Amino acid sequence: MIYDDVFAKALTRLRDEQRYRIFIEIERIAGRCPYAIWNSPRGPREIVIWCSNDYLGMSQHPDVISAMSETASRTGTGAGGTRNIAGTNSPLVELERELADLHSKAAGLVFTSGYVSNQAGISTIARLIGDCLILSDELNHNSIIEGIRQSGVDRKIGQHNDVADLEPLLAAEPARPKLIVFESLYSMDGDLAPVGQICDLATRYGAMTYCDEVHAVGLYGARGAGIAARDGTIHRIDVIEGTLAKAFGCLGGYIAGSSNLIDAVRCYAPGFIFTTALPPPLCSAATAAIRHLKTSDQERRLQQASAARLKQVMSAARLPVMPTSTHIVPLMVCDAGLCKQASDLLLRDHGIYIQPINYPTVPKGTERLRITPTSFHGQALIDQLLDALIDVWRRPELPFARSPLAAE
Amino acid sequence: MIYDDVFAKALTRLRDEQRYRIFIEIERIAGRCPYAIWNSPRGPREIVIWCSNDYLGMSQHPDVISAMSETASRTGTGAGGTRNIAGTNSPLVELERELADLHSKAAGLVFTSGYVSNQAGISTIARLIGDCLILSDELNHNSIIEGIRQSGVDRKIGQHNDVADLEPLLAAEPARPKLIVFESLYSMDGDLAPVGQICDLATRYGAMTYCDEVHAVGLYGARGAGIAARDGTIHRIDVIEGTLAKAFGCLGGYIAGSSNLIDAVRCYAPGFIFTTALPPPLCSAATAAIRHLKTSDQERRLQQASAARLKQVMSAARLPVMPTSTHIVPLMVCDAGLCKQASDLLLRDHGIYIQPINYPTVPKGTERLRITPTSFHGQALIDQLLDALIDVWRRPELPFARSPLAAE
Repeated sequence: MIYDDVFAKALTRLRDEQRYRIFIEIERIAGRCPYAIWNSPRGPREIVIWCSNDYLGMSQHPDVISAMSETASRTGTGAGGTRNIAGTNSPLVELERELADLHSKAAGLVFTSGYVSNQAGISTIARLIGDCLILSDELNHNSIIEGIRQSGVDRKIGQHNDVADLEPLLAAEPARPKLIVFESLYSMDGDLAPVGQICDLATRYGAMTYCDEVHAVGLYGARGAGIAARDGTIHRIDVIEGTLAKAFGCLGGYIAGSSNLIDAVRCYAPGFIFTTALPPPLCSAATAAIRHLKTSDQERRLQQASAARLKQVMSAARLPVMPTSTHIVPLMVCDAGLCKQASDLLLRDHGIYIQPINYPTVPKGTERLRITPTSFHGQALIDQLLDALIDVWRRPELPFARSPLAAE
Repeated sequence: MIYDDVFAKALTRLRDEQRYRIFIEIERIAGRCPYAIWNSPRGPREIVIWCSNDYLGMSQHPDVISAMSETASRTGTGAGGTRNIAGTNSPLVELERELADLHSKAAGLVFTSGYVSNQAGISTIARLIGDCLILSDELNHNSIIEGIRQSGVDRKIGQHNDVADLEPLLAAEPARPKLIVFESLYSMDGDLAPVGQICDLATRYGAMTYCDEVHAVGLYGARGAGIAARDGTIHRIDVIEGTLAKAFGCLGGYIAGSSNLIDAVRCYAPGFIFTTALPPPLCSAATAAIRHLKTSDQERRLQQASAARLKQVMSAARLPVMPTSTHIVPLMVCDAGLCKQASDLLLRDHGIYIQPINYPTVPKGTERLRITPTSFHGQALIDQLLDALIDVWRRPELPFARSPLAAE
């Protein structure tokens, strides 16, 4: 058997389905968010990024950068071991305390990524509970799905953000331990879960709640603790899962919860035990970002203002923007090839970078440009984006150029 | 159901089995490897680390630290997105080229950790091959086991480093695609796989080879490419898996192989697709470490000399050290409670930090102190360690004090 042929064929399948992804190589420019250098096939070129999850530009905040550099100079670049074997560094312990405080929980536990925190957190919690039933929203992130799969326990999938659909699933198993897993803010549609109502059901039917807030931490609530904190339901959530890699501008993920729960995951989760600890400089940088956003509301206000302004002008221009109540602005294309074409034209002709979002990140037929305004996308950049989008949407050579507008 | 009781009971079980782990909180001191500050219950105290996987002290190398700081200042602390969505940064692309070159392969792919690289790499490769049989060494790392489990394909476990046991497993399935997964250097026993013989069997029976070199990269071979490179078998290995978090002093993992294989994993592995890219400063730091170790042999020579000297003096003192041909020096205790006691005494009375290695990291009954001399553990530190070990091994109050010596 020629193994390489297997992999070549797998790639051909993707190309045939127009799902083959080409990564754009960029170099961001600290202090000039949202600008970056695109290393294009024709050489370096300055572009504007409109699709980053560094929502508040915190990865370029002077306090965050200097925290990383200072700790690197003082302790070195890496942790040098797993948490158990020489890897538990002071900046990491401090970060976990900071996260517990952020979410008003007794304890926090840091993983190497948000993906791993869901995968290891959910699978370990469900396994420890034993005969557990997981109730999972149909649009939950791949990392949640993998966590559930790894747990090996039964799961039922509820319709998206639909408590009327969720309730009978809970009611059907009165005697069984249950874990409701959901996201507070779904990143592709930009919609919010009915957190309070989910908590009501959890109380009524004796279920635990696990809430993924990765697209909300830093961004919502008076201290940036997320949607549950903003809505006053944080005390009703058993486990908050978050990331350090989006609004906090670094890398890593975490869970926060009761002391016993966090300690048990710490002791039982293979994906936590057998991996090198997060480097001290990253921990210090994340802590600096969290602390800044606990007291500064300016970044959040600017970002929300940018998002509101962008949605307003896009709607006025009859661009097919999906209405959202959050900072996510999905511009629907609903075709993989056209979505890629639109993205390519924006980059080539306008120096605007918005990655096409195709399957498997979103269901087929719902392909989109997912636009994420940051605190740094002011009026001039919004005007520039609008002009570019209108130009691309009007290209006569593009079959979709008039139809989305006509569909409005 | 009171869920918290479940977690409390799970912790009680660990305490009853003497498996409850207490992490030592340390702060390493850049420029003074292997010294660190231990934040002990009684306050900060200077200690010597003898159990780090930062084997060559590269996390504190001035070039590595300045690469991290320089890139953080230039681009910011985080990547800001997944690889597909604004996260493919130039330092990461450069790092992948460097890794491909290091291992003489066409391409490399970086993950957020070595754990994830095995988990996502093995599961994706095996799934793509289809009706694949995985042959796995019985002592393979947990991340390999999880990768195999996630693949969902059949697997057979071979006896440790035993080609005579492996051959019939391969021969039994002549028509089937097969993947042999093994480590070049097993980190707990410090022994080496018969890489060439495994490759011979792979050729004979038409199997692919996947070799985990996480405890060998940077440390063996003229350019630090690992055991397979040192032994001239690298061209016979289909996939090399390595880490940036041990000898290279940073964080992250990777695989290297053919263009088609790497591209297919890039396109199909959920654990790669749905996670934020490694931060540019970490990529730059890792690249600096790899480049340094490609040309500098001094760190490797010093480390090997330290390990040889330590093994020699420990054997002479009749301490129960397991013979190895590598830089790993396991001191056998074979009891979980005693292993923890020995570790505690070394730390408390001698300021020497060697974490006890208990189940599930090693099988029950094979508990040990795993000593890892680095390039920076010179003669004076070795003498100090030897005195401390002899002192601890002679404590009359310790039941194991005389028995390991008597067993020699």
